[in-house]
Amino acid sequence: MRAQNNSKSRAVAVLPLLGWIADYSRRDLSSDTLAAVIVTIMLVPQSLAYAMLANLPPQVGLYASIVPLIGYALFGSSRALAVGPVAVVSLMTASAIGVVAEPGTAEFMAAAVLLAALSGVFLFALGLFRLGALATLLSHPVVSGFMTGAAILIALSQLGHILGLPLSGSTLPAFWQSITEIEAGPNLVTSIIGIATVAFLFAVRRYLGGVLRRWGLSAFLADVVVKAAPVLAVIASVVAVGALELSSRFGVAVVGAIPGGLPPLTIPALDPGLIGALIVPAMLISVIGFVESVSVAQSLAARSREKIDANRELMGLGAANLGAAFTAGYPVTGGFARSVVNHAAGARTPIAGIFTAALMALTAIALTPAFHNLPNAVLGATIIVAVLGLVDFRSIVRTWRYSRADGAALIVTLALVMIEGIEAGILAGVALSLALLIWRTARPHVAVVGRVPGTEHYRNINRHEVLTDDAVVAVRVDESLNFANARALEDQLVGLVADRPAARHLVLICSAVNAIDASALESLEALNARLKDSGVDLHLAEVKGPVMDRLTGTEFLQHLSGAIHLSTHGAMTALATDPSSGRVSAYIASNTDGSAPASASPPSTAKI
Amino acid sequence: MRAQNNSKSRAVAVLPLLGWIADYSRRDLSSDTLAAVIVTIMLVPQSLAYAMLANLPPQVGLYASIVPLIGYALFGSSRALAVGPVAVVSLMTASAIGVVAEPGTAEFMAAAVLLAALSGVFLFALGLFRLGALATLLSHPVVSGFMTGAAILIALSQLGHILGLPLSGSTLPAFWQSITEIEAGPNLVTSIIGIATVAFLFAVRRYLGGVLRRWGLSAFLADVVVKAAPVLAVIASVVAVGALELSSRFGVAVVGAIPGGLPPLTIPALDPGLIGALIVPAMLISVIGFVESVSVAQSLAARSREKIDANRELMGLGAANLGAAFTAGYPVTGGFARSVVNHAAGARTPIAGIFTAALMALTAIALTPAFHNLPNAVLGATIIVAVLGLVDFRSIVRTWRYSRADGAALIVTLALVMIEGIEAGILAGVALSLALLIWRTARPHVAVVGRVPGTEHYRNINRHEVLTDDAVVAVRVDESLNFANARALEDQLVGLVADRPAARHLVLICSAVNAIDASALESLEALNARLKDSGVDLHLAEVKGPVMDRLTGTEFLQHLSGAIHLSTHGAMTALATDPSSGRVSAYIASNTDGSAPASASPPSTAKI
Repeated sequence: MRAQNNSKSRAVAVLPLLGWIADYSRRDLSSDTLAAVIVTIMLVPQSLAYAMLANLPPQVGLYASIVPLIGYALFGSSRALAVGPVAVVSLMTASAIGVVAEPGTAEFMAAAVLLAALSGVFLFALGLFRLGALATLLSHPVVSGFMTGAAILIALSQLGHILGLPLSGSTLPAFWQSITEIEAGPNLVTSIIGIATVAFLFAVRRYLGGVLRRWGLSAFLADVVVKAAPVLAVIASVVAVGALELSSRFGVAVVGAIPGGLPPLTIPALDPGLIGALIVPAMLISVIGFVESVSVAQSLAARSREKIDANRELMGLGAANLGAAFTAGYPVTGGFARSVVNHAAGARTPIAGIFTAALMALTAIALTPAFHNLPNAVLGATIIVAVLGLVDFRSIVRTWRYSRADGAALIVTLALVMIEGIEAGILAGVALSLALLIWRTARPHVAVVGRVPGTEHYRNINRHEVLTDDAVVAVRVDESLNFANARALEDQLVGLVADRPAARHLVLICSAVNAIDASALESLEALNARLKDSGVDLHLAEVKGPVMDRLTGTEFLQHLSGAIHLSTHGAMTALATDPSSGRVSAYIASNTDGSAPASASPPSTAKI
Repeated sequence: MRAQNNSKSRAVAVLPLLGWIADYSRRDLSSDTLAAVIVTIMLVPQSLAYAMLANLPPQVGLYASIVPLIGYALFGSSRALAVGPVAVVSLMTASAIGVVAEPGTAEFMAAAVLLAALSGVFLFALGLFRLGALATLLSHPVVSGFMTGAAILIALSQLGHILGLPLSGSTLPAFWQSITEIEAGPNLVTSIIGIATVAFLFAVRRYLGGVLRRWGLSAFLADVVVKAAPVLAVIASVVAVGALELSSRFGVAVVGAIPGGLPPLTIPALDPGLIGALIVPAMLISVIGFVESVSVAQSLAARSREKIDANRELMGLGAANLGAAFTAGYPVTGGFARSVVNHAAGARTPIAGIFTAALMALTAIALTPAFHNLPNAVLGATIIVAVLGLVDFRSIVRTWRYSRADGAALIVTLALVMIEGIEAGILAGVALSLALLIWRTARPHVAVVGRVPGTEHYRNINRHEVLTDDAVVAVRVDESLNFANARALEDQLVGLVADRPAARHLVLICSAVNAIDASALESLEALNARLKDSGVDLHLAEVKGPVMDRLTGTEFLQHLSGAIHLSTHGAMTALATDPSSGRVSAYIASNTDGSAPASASPPSTAKI
C-alpha cells in the first residue's frame, strides 16, 4: 500500500495531471469548457498580432497556441495560467533572430524554432535542477525598467502598421533612422482604420465595463466582453475590407492567405554557430518569460490558497517551449490578461488549457481563410493597446523616491533597452543590481551607542539622549560582516578608538550581524591585534547563535583580548570601571535649536 | 590666522611631509639613518633577486629601489613602510610583460616601464578619487589562495637557477613542459651552491635568532642579523666564485657585468595596443600590491596608535610606481619583512626611506662591479626562502573548517593561479567571492518563533521550548531584504501560512532587517496581497529606525492589512485572540531522548 502510494506520488511529481484527473467531475468539465471558449476568443487575434510583432507569418502565432498549451498542462503547476505568444517575448524573439536571418526566409523560421528549443531546454533544466532562484538576479527595478522600455519599443514598432508606413527598428536610434528614410506619406485609409481601432479599443477598455455593469451585467461578464473587444474589431474590419475592397483599391495591408491545417512537425537544426548566437537571447527570453509568468500564476493561486512551485513552473514553461520548437512555433510564456480571464471564467484544471489548444487547432484548420482580409493596422492597434498597459512611469517615480540606487538601476535599464537594445539593457541592469547590492553591504550603518537613562536599552548617541563611559566605546554594526565591508569597518572602528584617547574597551554589538565570513573573521583578528597594540580590549556582545557556533574554536576567539557578553548591558556593567564617570552625551536632535535638553546634566546615579 | 591654518592643512593633505619636517630633530635623524642602513643591507640582494624573478636585468632592481622610495616618502602616510621590488609583484610583472615581449629585448624593458606607469596612474587615481574601497573586492580567501599559489610558482621558477637547469614556465603545466624538455643534467657546482645557500638561509632563519639571543644580543639586533643573512651569503659566494674561478671553470651562472651609475630617465611609450594588453595586469598588480602593503602599514601604525589613510597609501604607492616608470624601474609596493625591520630599527619619519634611496643610489653608482661574480643560484635561494613564508596551508585548512564556501573560493583561486595563471586565478576568485556573497544573502535564515514561558523573549521554535498561538505565526528573518532573497522569502512565508490553516496573522520580525530594497518592497506588497487573499493579515514588528523612515509614505504601508508593532511581544499580545489556546510547541533538543520535557504541558496562565 505504502509502495503504491509512493509510486503514485512520484508519478504525480512528474506529471501533476495524474493528481486530479481521477476526481474530474462533470462540473469541472463545464467550467473548463467555458473558460477555454473565452480564452480562445482572446487568443486568436493576439496570436496573429504577436506573430506579426515577431516578424513571423501569422500561422506561426496560431501554431504557438496549440501544442505549447498541452505541454504546459502536462508539466505546469498553475491551474489558471494561459500559455501562448506574449508581446514582450515576441519582441525579444524578433530582436534575437533578426540578428541571424532576414524576416521571411526559411532561415528566419528555423531560427525561431531553434530559439524556442533552446529556451525550452534551458527552462526545463532550470526546473529539473531546482535552479529557479537564478531568476532572482533580475531585480524588480530591472524588470520594471525593461518592461516599460520594451512596451515603448513595441508600441513604436506598430506605428508603421497603423499608419501604413515602412517603419522598423528594434531600438530608438534605429527607429529614428527608419523615419528619416521614409519617402512617401502615410496610407490614408490604413491610418483611419488603425487610429479608429486604437481609439475604439481604448474607449472600450476605459468605459465599456462601467456601462455594461450599469446595464446589469455581472462584473465577470462585463470583463469578458471588454477583453473580447479586439475580436469585434477584427470581425468589423474583415467585413469592411471585404465589402469595400479596401485592400485592392486603397492599398490597405492585410494579413493575406494563411495556410490552413495543423502545424507541421519541425526538428530544430542544431547548428553550433546558430546556437552560439541565440543562447544568450534564449536565456534572457526564458528568464524574463518565467519571471512574468510565475508572478501571474502566484497571484492567481493565492486567491485559492494554492501553492505555486517555481521549479515546476519552469518545467511547465520548458515543456511548452519544447512543444513550440517541434511544431513550427516560437517562444511562449504565460500571458497576464488571458490568465486572469481564464481564472475568472472558472478554469478548474489544466484541462481548460488542453481545450483551448483544441479550439485553436480547429481555428488553424478551418478559420484561416476568414483572416485573409484582416488589416495589419487592426492587429497593430490591438498590440499597442495591450502593451501600453505595461508602461509604468509611476513605478519609476515611486522607485526613485524610495531609493535613489534602485531608481538609477531602473532608469539605466530603461534607457539602455531603448537605446542599445533589449539584451544590453537587461545585462547592464543585472550587473548594476549586483554592484548596488555589494555597494550596500560594503557601507554598513555603524552607530556608537549609549544607555537610555533608567533602562537597559542602548541607542545611537547621535539620535538619542544617552549615557556613555569614556573608557568603554559600544558600537553597533547593522550588517553582516563580510569581505566587502570588513576592511573598511576595521579601519572605522580603529579610527573611533583613536579619536577617544581614554578608551580602554571596544564593545562590538552584533545583534544585526547575521553572518561573519572568513575575510571578516580575518579582519576581526586584525582589529583585535591592532586594538591590543593600542592598549584597547575588544569585546563582543549579543552574538547570534549560528554566528557563535561558527566562531567557537577559531583562533580569533582564543586571541580575543576582551570577552563575549550575552547582552550589551551586561558588557557595559562589567566594563564600566568608574561609576562616577557616567555622563550624558550630547543629544543631537534633527530639530534641536542648539540648547541642551533639560535632562542633559549627568545624573549622579548613572552607572555607565 | 584661520585662513593660514586652512592653507597649511590643505598643503599637508597634499604633501604629508610638510606636517612633520619642521619638528625634525637630531634624534629623529640618527634613528632614521640607522634604519636606512639596515634596510639597505636587506634591500640590495632582494632588489637584484626580484629583478631576476621578473626576468629583468639586475640593475633594474636597484633602480626600482631609488626614486620610488622618494615618491612614497612624499605622498604616503606610513612612517615605516619600506617600498621597493617585492616577490609577488615581480612574478606578476614577469607574467604580464612576458605576454607582449621577449625577455632581454628593449621591448621587454619598455613594457616593464609602461606597466609601472599604468599601475602608478591607476593607484594615484584610486587614491585621489577615494576609491580605495574597490580593493575590498579581493576577499581574504582569494588573496590567501593567490599568495600561496604565487609563492609556489615563484619557488618553482627558481629551481632552475638553483640547479643550473633551463627551467621556466609561469604555470604548473608550462613548468612541467619545460621539465620534459631538459636535455642535460643539473650543473653540480651550481647545485651545491644553491642547495647550500637554501639550507644556510633556512637554518639562520630557524635557529640563529635564538642562538644570538642566548648569547646576550637584544631581540632587535638578533633579528637584524637574521634578516641580513642573505648579504652574508652574497659576500661569501662572490668571494668563493672569484677565488675558485667557479664561473669560468665550472659554468656557474653569475649576475655578470651590471652597468654602474644612477638610473637613466625613461619616458613610458604610450602605445595604445601595449596599454590595452597591460591594463588589466596593471590593475591586478596595483590592487594586490596595495592590499598587501596597506595591511603591513596598518599593523605597524597600530603599534604607535597612528592612523593609516588607505587613500593616502594609494597615492603614495602611485607616486612610487610613477617614479619607477620614469627611472627605468618596474612595479613596486611595500615589502613585509623590510617594513618590519624598518619599524623595529626605529624609522621615525619617511626621511628613513629617502636615506635608503640615497644609499641604494650609492650602491648603483659604486658597488655594481662587486656583484659580477654573484651566482644566480644564491639569488634564487634567497627568493625561495623568502617566498616559502608566504605558503600558508594552515590557512586553507582553517578557512575550509570555518566556512566551506570561503574554503572553496580559496582553493579555486589557488588551483587556477597555479594551473591557468595569476590573472585567471584572481579574476575567478573575485567572481566566486561575489557569487558567494549573493548566494549567502539569497538564502536567509528564517525562524518561526514562540515565547519563552514567563518572559517577553521570543525564540526559534525548533531550538527552544516556547509558547505559540495557532492563529498567529511569528517569523524572524535574519537578513536584509533585497532582490536576491525577496521572491524566495515571499514564497517561503506564503508556504508557512499555507501549512497552518488556523493562521490569521503573520508577524514579520524585522530586528535583523537592516535595509529593504525596492524589489523587496514589491515582494512585501505582493506578500501582503497574497496573504490577504488567503484571509491572513501581515504585521511587522521591531522595524529599525532607518528602515521605517524609508517605508513611511509607501503604498505598501498604506495597503498593509495588519499593523506595525514596536516589539514582538506587543504584537503577540495584541493579536492572540484566545488566551486559552496557548500551548507549548514541541521542543527539539539535539540530545533529546524523545520524551517530552517536564514543563511541556500547556501552562494555564499562558497568554499566547
